[in-house]
Amino acid sequence: MPTLRVEMLEGRSPEQKQKLVAALTQAVVDTLGSKPETVDVLLFDVPRSHWSTGGVLWSEKK
Amino acid sequence: MPTLRVEMLEGRSPEQKQKLVAALTQAVVDTLGSKPETVDVLLFDVPRSHWSTGGVLWSEKK
Amino acid sequence: MPTLRVEMLEGRSPEQKQKLVAALTQAVVDTLGSKPETVDVLLFDVPRSHWSTGGVLWSEKK
Amino acid sequence: MPTLRVEMLEGRSPEQKQKLVAALTQAVVDTLGSKPETVDVLLFDVPRSHWSTGGVLWSEKK
Amino acid sequence: MPTLRVEMLEGRSPEQKQKLVAALTQAVVDTLGSKPETVDVLLFDVPRSHWSTGGVLWSEKK
Amino acid sequence: MPTLRVEMLEGRSPEQKQKLVAALTQAVVDTLGSKPETVDVLLFDVPRSHWSTGGVLWSEKK
Repeated sequence: MPTLRVEMLEGRSPEQKQKLVAALTQAVVDTLGSKPETVDVLLFDVPRSHWSTGGVLWSEKK
Repeated sequence: MPTLRVEMLEGRSPEQKQKLVAALTQAVVDTLGSKPETVDVLLFDVPRSHWSTGGVLWSEKK
Repeated sequence: MPTLRVEMLEGRSPEQKQKLVAALTQAVVDTLGSKPETVDVLLFDVPRSHWSTGGVLWSEKK
Repeated sequence: MPTLRVEMLEGRSPEQKQKLVAALTQAVVDTLGSKPETVDVLLFDVPRSHWSTGGVLWSEKK
Repeated sequence: MPTLRVEMLEGRSPEQKQKLVAALTQAVVDTLGSKPETVDVLLFDVPRSHWSTGGVLWSEKK
Repeated sequence: MPTLRVEMLEGRSPEQKQKLVAALTQAVVDTLGSKPETVDVLLFDVPRSHWSTGGVLWSEKK
């Protein structure tokens, strides 16, 4: 039943996302003993224009 | 002031969403006694390529 | 698979929470046609000292 | 390390968003004493068709 | 209607939290033109034992 | 910069949490190529009285 939400900058490929959710789910199974089918992972692509660090959007950084 | 966030797979129609937010709001009013205007509901459509169960994205399931 | 998160000021009774999750789940079933067992609801009690409206924490309002 | 998430109705300009993240970050720095580079802000534009108040989506309000 | 969620390590004083929510709300008012009473801020204290950076919980860092 | 949030039923030991955040971080590093120090993981223990599946709180299930 563990539910994971991942926020990351947009731009990862579909293949990377497949591998990411598989690896995250395995990490939960290995460390918590959860059954895989009880693990949900939701991915959120955040545009560079919508994420700032230090008060500056990543779309504005050089 | 209760605030609800709903994450669901994309694909529901505008009419379903209208009915969903009305029904969820009524559920809060009926059970918590909140005034309707204090209840916010936010809907998030998650693409099948961004939600996995059991380590497999729904876009990859057959 | 719809997942709901509810943020509300702390203070509701266990009975209210039971009725709330049952009513919210039914609302999803009725409007989206989801099977009940696919609907998760997570409740978050927020202390009055941790929620502000208009820049004032509810613990400070009179 | 404070992380802020802002949900708002879509429609703000890129300039407003730049000013918003800068001002929010400064607010954290001023009041918590955090170093600016440790403050992340994520913005989420919510369509009017996906946010309801009082059980009515903003896209349906007149 | 903008809603802010702030996640931070636990340990800030009630006074810091009061100042934080006031300053964040003012930042939204100044940059987006929102009316103060439409701005909600929710604070979440995260224990050091529940936040990791680089794979190490802050409770384990030296 | 990827940020993960994990919601799970309360009851995991501190050791399980240490292993969990290490394994999740490694999964991100391995599949996305992120530097470990850019990966944050936040854990949220949800009481059984605050999570329902199928409209029934886990504290009420037998």
